[in-house]
Amino acid sequence: MPQIKILTEAELRQSTRLNRDLHDIIEQAFAALDNGGVIMPPVLSMDIAEKNGEVDVKTAYVPGLDAFAIKISPGFFDNPALGLPSLSGLMILFDSNTGIVKSLLLDNGYLTDIRTAAAGGIAARYLAPQQVDTLGIVGTGMQARLQLQSFLLERTPQRVLVWGRSSNSVTQFVENQSEALGINIQASDSIQQLVEQSQAIVTTTPARENLIKSEWLHPCLHITAMGSDSPEKHELEPDIITKADYFVVDRVQQSKERGELRMALEQGLVQGDGVFDELAGLCSGRLAGRTAEDQVTVCDLTGTGIQDTAVANYAFTQASQLNLGTVIES
Amino acid sequence: MPQIKILTEAELRQSTRLNRDLHDIIEQAFAALDNGGVIMPPVLSMDIAEKNGEVDVKTAYVPGLDAFAIKISPGFFDNPALGLPSLSGLMILFDSNTGIVKSLLLDNGYLTDIRTAAAGGIAARYLAPQQVDTLGIVGTGMQARLQLQSFLLERTPQRVLVWGRSSNSVTQFVENQSEALGINIQASDSIQQLVEQSQAIVTTTPARENLIKSEWLHPCLHITAMGSDSPEKHELEPDIITKADYFVVDRVQQSKERGELRMALEQGLVQGDGVFDELAGLCSGRLAGRTAEDQVTVCDLTGTGIQDTAVANYAFTQASQLNLGTVIES
Repeated sequence: MPQIKILTEAELRQSTRLNRDLHDIIEQAFAALDNGGVIMPPVLSMDIAEKNGEVDVKTAYVPGLDAFAIKISPGFFDNPALGLPSLSGLMILFDSNTGIVKSLLLDNGYLTDIRTAAAGGIAARYLAPQQVDTLGIVGTGMQARLQLQSFLLERTPQRVLVWGRSSNSVTQFVENQSEALGINIQASDSIQQLVEQSQAIVTTTPARENLIKSEWLHPCLHITAMGSDSPEKHELEPDIITKADYFVVDRVQQSKERGELRMALEQGLVQGDGVFDELAGLCSGRLAGRTAEDQVTVCDLTGTGIQDTAVANYAFTQASQLNLGTVIES
Repeated sequence: MPQIKILTEAELRQSTRLNRDLHDIIEQAFAALDNGGVIMPPVLSMDIAEKNGEVDVKTAYVPGLDAFAIKISPGFFDNPALGLPSLSGLMILFDSNTGIVKSLLLDNGYLTDIRTAAAGGIAARYLAPQQVDTLGIVGTGMQARLQLQSFLLERTPQRVLVWGRSSNSVTQFVENQSEALGINIQASDSIQQLVEQSQAIVTTTPARENLIKSEWLHPCLHITAMGSDSPEKHELEPDIITKADYFVVDRVQQSKERGELRMALEQGLVQGDGVFDELAGLCSGRLAGRTAEDQVTVCDLTGTGIQDTAVANYAFTQASQLNLGTVIES
């Protein structure tokens, strides 16, 4: 009888944290993607308009890892009216050799949150200037908090500027995160000011407009656009892609369909068959990334199945070391 | 804290059987597909050649059902050498209103087996002649057994002929099923003989060749081709599709890619933009199906996400009525 280990969100939060180890795990997965042998089908998306809901299914097989994950991410945006979170979901781990279910990770999106943050950390590792005095965070939600945490694992800014649509949320973010992280965080009056004063910026909003304008770019700047990964996603003025010294995405096909490349393609700023670098090439050492401190670099992250497979394997190992989980015979 | 009910294969086998109720449930799901509002994205397939494995993910949202299922079906064909079954997998039920995980059905493919059989039963309901004296079963595996069971819920043949590649398997099938079902089952010397003497036939093999030749067709005949749903699938000589009085599939797009239509398209016997009827139209009453006892009808089934969503909802209800399952708080 196959045994299946069931891990709850609480057990996963207890065992698996956003830290340098997780950054390294995610970096290795991207390196594997560049080295070949990874199988990563396009995302399965189901749009349930009558419920204001959607479901995405992502997966990737990564050679050398014990298991591959299939992640199911529902987003039902009327849930808050019912007192429920919009996002939920789980990951299922399958043995890489036999396809047999190994573990159910009932994470309600927690593992997605930290693997998304870790990709931001890896982008910072390869692309942020070495010297970042001021980090700008656009947005005040959970991913804004995690991206800040992730960035601090890779660089040592003296100051963080934060901008958000709701001044209440900004105030709370400043208070809570200053205390939690022991760093100087200030509210920024405008995005323009934030951009002009920062050497690194992470955007984490569901914006569908040009939050950051290309005329604000300046030497010694890195921008990571996380945002939501829907086809309407779009936080940067599209010509930022062509004006930057270096532009890189996590997955070209996805960025063309549901990332920053999409609008640039629509506006004819880049060609549909254009070649764009992927973060994987930086992680494997094949591509150079930032080559001078004064460059402007931009990274668009849409989220990939390899991150899910990597974080799920890592979480399974971490939780098992703590003897967490409930085993079911099936 | 959301509660998730976990149901094991043993619990699902105990509570959820192939019977007329299940036929009706599957028929209603097909009717819903025809009536509109169903959302059924294309199958997500991942081919893991280095492990001789593959994974399919199917799903469908059916308006009016409490939950939608996502089904993950791994097939790893070197498993038998390890003493493990090739096929495994599970279904996950999500609340239709909130997207929140409701139940994990660790069925190892059992629910797929019976929902596949039930679709065969529904095809027989609408397409088999009323008078079937002899039923022909091609293949001797589990689906052959289940298709026979399913057919007997819809028609009352006096005799069953069975043909298989291995005469040992045929002998076993005849012995076991005669006893289990209390019906006269005989081994057929050849497929030709089986076709010529039957009024209804179900093919259940992974064949990649013309098992049934068009010259053997005769009045008063229905054929359901189940087979494996891979792109190479192909049990019928392709011109059977054009020679039959009525040809119907479960899902046109799937049959073109991984069903009997594929070879007919390749050979130019039908056009890529040709219109084909779907079983759903019969179930809703919009299409007539068989209109005379002497017609030749053919149905190609490739398996659809609506069947998974329907059987998963049904299994959840049946198991809950028996108070089966383990509840996990997550």
